Amino acid sequence: MRPSGRNRDEMRSISIETGIVKHAAGSCLIRCGDTHVICTASLEERVPPWLRNSGLGWVTAEYGMLPGATSSRNRREATAGKQSGRTQEIQRLIGRSLRAGVDRPALGERQITVDCDVIQADGGTRCASITGGWVALALAVRSLMNAGEIKTNPLTSPILAVSCGIYGGQPVLDLDYAEDSVAGTDANFVMTGEKRLVEVQGSAEGATFARDELLALLDLAEIGCDRLAAAQQAALAG
Amino acid sequence: MRPSGRNRDEMRSISIETGIVKHAAGSCLIRCGDTHVICTASLEERVPPWLRNSGLGWVTAEYGMLPGATSSRNRREATAGKQSGRTQEIQRLIGRSLRAGVDRPALGERQITVDCDVIQADGGTRCASITGGWVALALAVRSLMNAGEIKTNPLTSPILAVSCGIYGGQPVLDLDYAEDSVAGTDANFVMTGEKRLVEVQGSAEGATFARDELLALLDLAEIGCDRLAAAQQAALAG
Amino acid sequence: MRPSGRNRDEMRSISIETGIVKHAAGSCLIRCGDTHVICTASLEERVPPWLRNSGLGWVTAEYGMLPGATSSRNRREATAGKQSGRTQEIQRLIGRSLRAGVDRPALGERQITVDCDVIQADGGTRCASITGGWVALALAVRSLMNAGEIKTNPLTSPILAVSCGIYGGQPVLDLDYAEDSVAGTDANFVMTGEKRLVEVQGSAEGATFARDELLALLDLAEIGCDRLAAAQQAALAG
Amino acid sequence: MRPSGRNRDEMRSISIETGIVKHAAGSCLIRCGDTHVICTASLEERVPPWLRNSGLGWVTAEYGMLPGATSSRNRREATAGKQSGRTQEIQRLIGRSLRAGVDRPALGERQITVDCDVIQADGGTRCASITGGWVALALAVRSLMNAGEIKTNPLTSPILAVSCGIYGGQPVLDLDYAEDSVAGTDANFVMTGEKRLVEVQGSAEGATFARDELLALLDLAEIGCDRLAAAQQAALAG
Amino acid sequence: MRPSGRNRDEMRSISIETGIVKHAAGSCLIRCGDTHVICTASLEERVPPWLRNSGLGWVTAEYGMLPGATSSRNRREATAGKQSGRTQEIQRLIGRSLRAGVDRPALGERQITVDCDVIQADGGTRCASITGGWVALALAVRSLMNAGEIKTNPLTSPILAVSCGIYGGQPVLDLDYAEDSVAGTDANFVMTGEKRLVEVQGSAEGATFARDELLALLDLAEIGCDRLAAAQQAALAG
Amino acid sequence: MRPSGRNRDEMRSISIETGIVKHAAGSCLIRCGDTHVICTASLEERVPPWLRNSGLGWVTAEYGMLPGATSSRNRREATAGKQSGRTQEIQRLIGRSLRAGVDRPALGERQITVDCDVIQADGGTRCASITGGWVALALAVRSLMNAGEIKTNPLTSPILAVSCGIYGGQPVLDLDYAEDSVAGTDANFVMTGEKRLVEVQGSAEGATFARDELLALLDLAEIGCDRLAAAQQAALAG
Repeated sequence: MRPSGRNRDEMRSISIETGIVKHAAGSCLIRCGDTHVICTASLEERVPPWLRNSGLGWVTAEYGMLPGATSSRNRREATAGKQSGRTQEIQRLIGRSLRAGVDRPALGERQITVDCDVIQADGGTRCASITGGWVALALAVRSLMNAGEIKTNPLTSPILAVSCGIYGGQPVLDLDYAEDSVAGTDANFVMTGEKRLVEVQGSAEGATFARDELLALLDLAEIGCDRLAAAQQAALAG
Repeated sequence: MRPSGRNRDEMRSISIETGIVKHAAGSCLIRCGDTHVICTASLEERVPPWLRNSGLGWVTAEYGMLPGATSSRNRREATAGKQSGRTQEIQRLIGRSLRAGVDRPALGERQITVDCDVIQADGGTRCASITGGWVALALAVRSLMNAGEIKTNPLTSPILAVSCGIYGGQPVLDLDYAEDSVAGTDANFVMTGEKRLVEVQGSAEGATFARDELLALLDLAEIGCDRLAAAQQAALAG
Repeated sequence: MRPSGRNRDEMRSISIETGIVKHAAGSCLIRCGDTHVICTASLEERVPPWLRNSGLGWVTAEYGMLPGATSSRNRREATAGKQSGRTQEIQRLIGRSLRAGVDRPALGERQITVDCDVIQADGGTRCASITGGWVALALAVRSLMNAGEIKTNPLTSPILAVSCGIYGGQPVLDLDYAEDSVAGTDANFVMTGEKRLVEVQGSAEGATFARDELLALLDLAEIGCDRLAAAQQAALAG
Repeated sequence: MRPSGRNRDEMRSISIETGIVKHAAGSCLIRCGDTHVICTASLEERVPPWLRNSGLGWVTAEYGMLPGATSSRNRREATAGKQSGRTQEIQRLIGRSLRAGVDRPALGERQITVDCDVIQADGGTRCASITGGWVALALAVRSLMNAGEIKTNPLTSPILAVSCGIYGGQPVLDLDYAEDSVAGTDANFVMTGEKRLVEVQGSAEGATFARDELLALLDLAEIGCDRLAAAQQAALAG
Repeated sequence: MRPSGRNRDEMRSISIETGIVKHAAGSCLIRCGDTHVICTASLEERVPPWLRNSGLGWVTAEYGMLPGATSSRNRREATAGKQSGRTQEIQRLIGRSLRAGVDRPALGERQITVDCDVIQADGGTRCASITGGWVALALAVRSLMNAGEIKTNPLTSPILAVSCGIYGGQPVLDLDYAEDSVAGTDANFVMTGEKRLVEVQGSAEGATFARDELLALLDLAEIGCDRLAAAQQAALAG
Repeated sequence: MRPSGRNRDEMRSISIETGIVKHAAGSCLIRCGDTHVICTASLEERVPPWLRNSGLGWVTAEYGMLPGATSSRNRREATAGKQSGRTQEIQRLIGRSLRAGVDRPALGERQITVDCDVIQADGGTRCASITGGWVALALAVRSLMNAGEIKTNPLTSPILAVSCGIYGGQPVLDLDYAEDSVAGTDANFVMTGEKRLVEVQGSAEGATFARDELLALLDLAEIGCDRLAAAQQAALAG
């Protein structure tokens, strides 16, 4: 029995509200249950030094969490003077994941920075950031295409992410914080719309896991990504 | 003629939505025109070292801005490794201002941290942070009183803040970004509900100003604070 | 009764000794009672990146305090690894204030950095820094004019600063540390020689204040700035 | 055809030399082909604050790379003033992995810090660090048991790690740098001696991958971990 | 021929003015030619953690240079966010040197921090800091003895420092900046009043040196230290 | 009687193994008794900004210590976020010393960075770093000459370093940690192959010293440097 009463293969409710920040080229507020993340995509007509004159574009991501987002206030990283290892690990994952859905020659020599800021946290913030970040990215790309600055659509496939885990000995889909904090195994899956794998990050938090358990989590993740893909499409069509 | 078409003594539309973050003891989203700020108040049952065993409480504030909040992306301070001088100046102002409305012996030896994070910026973010921060603070105090942890209400007066300036040679109320970026003089006023002054910060950005101009700006600020006080009361009554 | 025995509208003794550092383009040691500040102005034939090819000059300021300047040793900021929020706030104020007396096109594309280092502190260090910093700046400009590098005098008006406050319920001029540490209200005024306002920073440290009190403090500040202007003129004539 | 001429399922030569640093409680130099890592395990009779009085031990890891270890000199992180995101991600992985083989109540309230410093890099440094780090950890635990400070062996299973990838369209075992830098998919597997999974980190560097490819990489990893386990046993028996 | 016209064994003029900062327990302004340093000694009734309950006192030093002290402005270290290697090396030298003249058990468990801040630099700033720092330290100790807090004088011998060098092929005493910047060899000597050596730091800046040259520099240093000792005594008697 | 049983003028055993890191242009592992240091020399075809278009080469050094090198683990400086004052002082010394043996015009406009990383520490790490660093540097220069990129050998003399001290009232050669930690005086000597002095750093750690004692230490150092020079030659000939 899950704390939320959900079935083993049941996602939390998902909503994606676009256009919530007027200055960014693309933006959305994604809500996966009680996890709420603001995602914005900003355009720059220049790339990092190592890509100059390469003809290739770049997509990068940054991740943050508001101090009031967690049950006890988390310290503001700007005050601490640096980003934690966890934050850096997450934003590197988001960036790598989003780039897997982008044809960088087609994007051309420009950079899109996707910022994912968690307003309220209840587990799965990195996965919500990837799923919502894709929407912000797609909106920014759309604005470039509408403006005629890009001819060929550089988006090759939507990118989706969900976490699964072994909770109470059972594989379950879309861990919330109550589950995540006690799960023996926790695995994040990032996929394309065609269910090809982009990232698999399985970790034995408390108990090691068998090959079969990894596959059972992967089965659940495919179910979840279908749901997320539908929510993305609805948001981008709206 | 103001860019927004407003009258000289006309505020932007104000809305204050409370309870937007479930974990914080008090929270709101304040919108002053296109300036949107999330304010959360977090409780801690301990005070900074210099107040231990003093019987006095403490209220402090931190301020931040999401990278996508401005027309060109502003660099994340956690990535830069420190808060800018501007950020520190603003959060010191917010903290001092809010403390002016709090009876610290009545609060008792506990700390309330008010975080003000700008989601979208269009001028006047520090004033919106103070006005919205007060609401978050008042909600956190209410939760303490409802729980019986505080007997005497430590809130002595609401705290309100608005910026005025000399725009096109005329004193105007509640500068937006289009005005703020070219105003000759810019002044922030923080007041109590009884119109007593908490902070006056007038600055000749481009042109020095006369005593009479300062007083004209103060007149406008009093008009604005009445509007803000009404919005605060509505939000706290809701 | 003031701790120093001064009248309500009486300044501390002022002395400004110029030329105390041989390498700087302009320098002075300003003494306002027991507050002593070394001010130096250094020239650079280049401006910050955002002003290149603008034809405009720049004046900026940095502020510091020697560890032995205060009654208990204050930690060296270079050791701490960063400037405090207070320091940054003060040096931003000094820079803004001095720029208000400079015609930046006439200065031409060069930068003057004014360093204000407090040797001994007894209240009012930021105001002494502005008043003394102006002298250092004026001497540096004079050296540029004597060398024929500037044709038109870019100094439009002297800049003066003094702090006033409500002490023992009474408005008093030129707070020293004994007064500043207990004053209910503290206000710094920066003015031109013609008594036009450059900065007004009033703050309710312990008690909010009324409009009339703000005006009474402003009256006192005008008296003080006359005294400071005379001391500046004597130093620059010497 | 692999650059090294190895078969698809062939590991590089492995050697583990123990006792190379006299001060550390446990130490080894692990060589996986041209990747050489010094691993040391240091004991402390105290735990991090959040574990005090918990009865639980702690194992943590730090990772570094000598500037001369790579083909072009890599900047010393102590000079840069911080560890990169990559370094932090790797050392978090090493620590989590090693803890999966430790019974923390049996270890008792003490901390073992495993330092992994890469002397020469040719791909797979994080996996070599985990495999060698385990040997250093086991030697440190042995010294505690020999001294009678621990009664029950806290080591539950050896920990092994190897990277696999899709190179030239084929799954291959134990990527070296020439392969790693062009591989479409790269996956690190951490396992116990019984082939239970501790960490799976698969990443589409250039091409997404299918479920079957993930499983083929896992098959190879099991072969590699058998080889690594034999080398660990030989080193610990020596 | 020296740039200043001095003889080979001639010191620059020396003056030491005591009591220049009212808050510090001991203070002086030392002038060695155009090198001017403010030295203050501050008392703390506690020692660093590693000396608690040892019965031993501690003397430490910090060194700084005002931005305007050099011919082109030197960057403020507090702004740079750290002390340079040169600064740290100098302040470690000052601290070690001063401790050589102190009986730490007699000082008792308290710390004296000597701050040396260069107001104007013309070579030999570290030596002037040591010689002047000793005066500030001695004044602080005197205040402790006058207050009856120390029974036995913990000062065992005055500490003196001077730099010598090979300039134009000749050993010369007390290098100024014009000499120091081109000298082939530069050596700093720190001595007690009895000419026993505390520190010898000889360095081949441009040309290696022979044993005999080292001895010739040492001869000169003894002459200089006699002069410095007389200046210290006069200042402390004054 | 020395703890190691060595005679007063007896060095520890020395070994220098070259070519231990395949990527660096020059490398060695130097062992002076139980002090072991990896030295690598890396080439860059560019110089620091202040040397551009000067025709001069540059040699610089960095120093580090693995956390497990000392009897109690020393904190990793990359984690601490900065290099200690001691580290900076040592690496500045190594760089200055090595440059004394290099004809910088003959080297041409390129930089060689010598990294010295202590694997195991038992006293004298800075001296071992200089002696071993010279070997790495010489190997890197040899590779440049073999490649025909340098015509004239820029190495003017080998550089050697050894520490001596007053232990138990007697001058002794080549202090190990057991001696260094209690020696009254400690002096590091850096010399050329012709026994000309490059650096002399004598320090009264616990007891001041006389001129004669300094000379006795220098005598011992000359004996030691002969031994080190022979070990360097053997390594470079091997």
